[in-house]
Amino acid sequence: MSSVPPSVHPGDLDARLAQNAAAIEAVLEALLSDAPAVGEIARPPRLLAAMRHGVLGGGKRLRPFLTAETARFLGVPVEQARRAGAAVELLHCYSLVHDDLPAMDDDDLRRGRPTVHKAFDEATAILAGDALLTLAFEVLADEATHESGAVRAALVTSLARASGCGGMVGGQMFDLAAEGRFEAVRGALPEAEIRRLQAMKTGALLAASVEIGARLGGADTAALVALGRYGRALGATFQIADDILDVESDAAQMGKATAKDADKGKGTLVGALGLTGAKRERDRLSAEAVEALAGFGPDAGVLRAAARFAAERKS
Amino acid sequence: MSSVPPSVHPGDLDARLAQNAAAIEAVLEALLSDAPAVGEIARPPRLLAAMRHGVLGGGKRLRPFLTAETARFLGVPVEQARRAGAAVELLHCYSLVHDDLPAMDDDDLRRGRPTVHKAFDEATAILAGDALLTLAFEVLADEATHESGAVRAALVTSLARASGCGGMVGGQMFDLAAEGRFEAVRGALPEAEIRRLQAMKTGALLAASVEIGARLGGADTAALVALGRYGRALGATFQIADDILDVESDAAQMGKATAKDADKGKGTLVGALGLTGAKRERDRLSAEAVEALAGFGPDAGVLRAAARFAAERKS
Repeated sequence: MSSVPPSVHPGDLDARLAQNAAAIEAVLEALLSDAPAVGEIARPPRLLAAMRHGVLGGGKRLRPFLTAETARFLGVPVEQARRAGAAVELLHCYSLVHDDLPAMDDDDLRRGRPTVHKAFDEATAILAGDALLTLAFEVLADEATHESGAVRAALVTSLARASGCGGMVGGQMFDLAAEGRFEAVRGALPEAEIRRLQAMKTGALLAASVEIGARLGGADTAALVALGRYGRALGATFQIADDILDVESDAAQMGKATAKDADKGKGTLVGALGLTGAKRERDRLSAEAVEALAGFGPDAGVLRAAARFAAERKS
Repeated sequence: MSSVPPSVHPGDLDARLAQNAAAIEAVLEALLSDAPAVGEIARPPRLLAAMRHGVLGGGKRLRPFLTAETARFLGVPVEQARRAGAAVELLHCYSLVHDDLPAMDDDDLRRGRPTVHKAFDEATAILAGDALLTLAFEVLADEATHESGAVRAALVTSLARASGCGGMVGGQMFDLAAEGRFEAVRGALPEAEIRRLQAMKTGALLAASVEIGARLGGADTAALVALGRYGRALGATFQIADDILDVESDAAQMGKATAKDADKGKGTLVGALGLTGAKRERDRLSAEAVEALAGFGPDAGVLRAAARFAAERKS
């Protein structure tokens, strides 16, 4: 796969995404096989089955794609970045398993299939999420990756900061509060609060996907700053595009109950800016992501295309 | 604290434990302050309060004690090992928060106080557990500790392997299965199964506490093997002593509903071996832990005392 030229036409993005998704699926399949890892006693079959249900067989694998393509454009063979990308995906999938729980968003379907607690049970879903989160860090720290210890520790730091109480989990918490879960919420959430919430809940992990690729590629401080700006703008683009899709698409097309978020009164930028204003903001953010890559030349073409894809995607 | 001589009389163990608990409490308090860490956007106050509720103000802090004392006896100033010990404690506390959930063990009290989902709510408890688990890895990987990248990555690996689907979480899953949660269980669990379950559920993390101290101390392979044997025997001692206490003590003394485990038909070695047999096995395991340290001389006195403490403790 590393034989694909890095300056491939951005129009080929769909093919690149599909190729990446297949490669990541294979890595995830290997990580979730029933062969215990070194040092493990055993993996309970029901737990492993629930982890596999929550991870395998679906999704665009956008986060590993960003990790792999960022690493590639910095000169790292893409295969070398697949495991780190898979770790980010494991973490993303754990968050979906826990978000779907009855006490959280209480969703029965995910990508048109029963959620983990529906296919198994609630206790198993909690433990499967915990195990996926733990496995994500185990994969990043694994010395078998042949990355230096300093790089492996930096990858763990990037992922932990993006996903903990000051990142994704914190964003989920603010989201529950914005829903009025803990006390009555008066009026719409201020736009600045919506932006903060979404930067934490979705943006931080997408930005970390890019950052992890950048660290694998040995990016210097200037490149890390530029790629950080790209990652945050991309994450914001992705989220606002998601909110626009939620309003525009019907449940059948998305494979889950899409009107639900709006019903619960969650603050979105579509609510704050209106549909037209939200689309304008989405395109502005996408352009900001592309602009952040201005210093990088044609090798960053796939990342630019990804920013446009985030704005234009239909599902 | 590093001025305490390493060959302190084992009889002083209570004082050492208390001193360690106070020091760890201070580290945990700092890690769970409302000042966001570098790179964080914000920490939702309700989430942080739930994390603090699940961690602060109690417990023997046995795991950080083992980390600190192992590091100390290998020549590392004990202060340097406190943060790593605190990370192990964060992980232990996350497991308690999730284990107490209604879908899991459904406990209302922990150490005589309301569990996190009772003091807050179920969604907050799930997220608080997730955030504590994530924070544990963030702390171990943090470059501010001045450990080398290779050591920090190795600490992450030790903790992740001990706590994931092949360790603590896997043990919890086998435990739920042994309770008959997923299908009817006929008869008592075989003794070998009980040992495996407990080695995963409790033993793995106690062994990792020792291993993390050993890695901080730059232990060579022979020392890692001996300390691994010590850690596993100590973990098994601790668990069987816990099961004996469950049978012997009343709810008031332990601060939680102790008869509950037996009611649910969980397999314990007390059930398999009888009370007298279990006490004999507990003392054998404690002696095995001490024996594993035979090559180490008087500096390992505190670790030997800890193995005796695990067998003799009354709460």
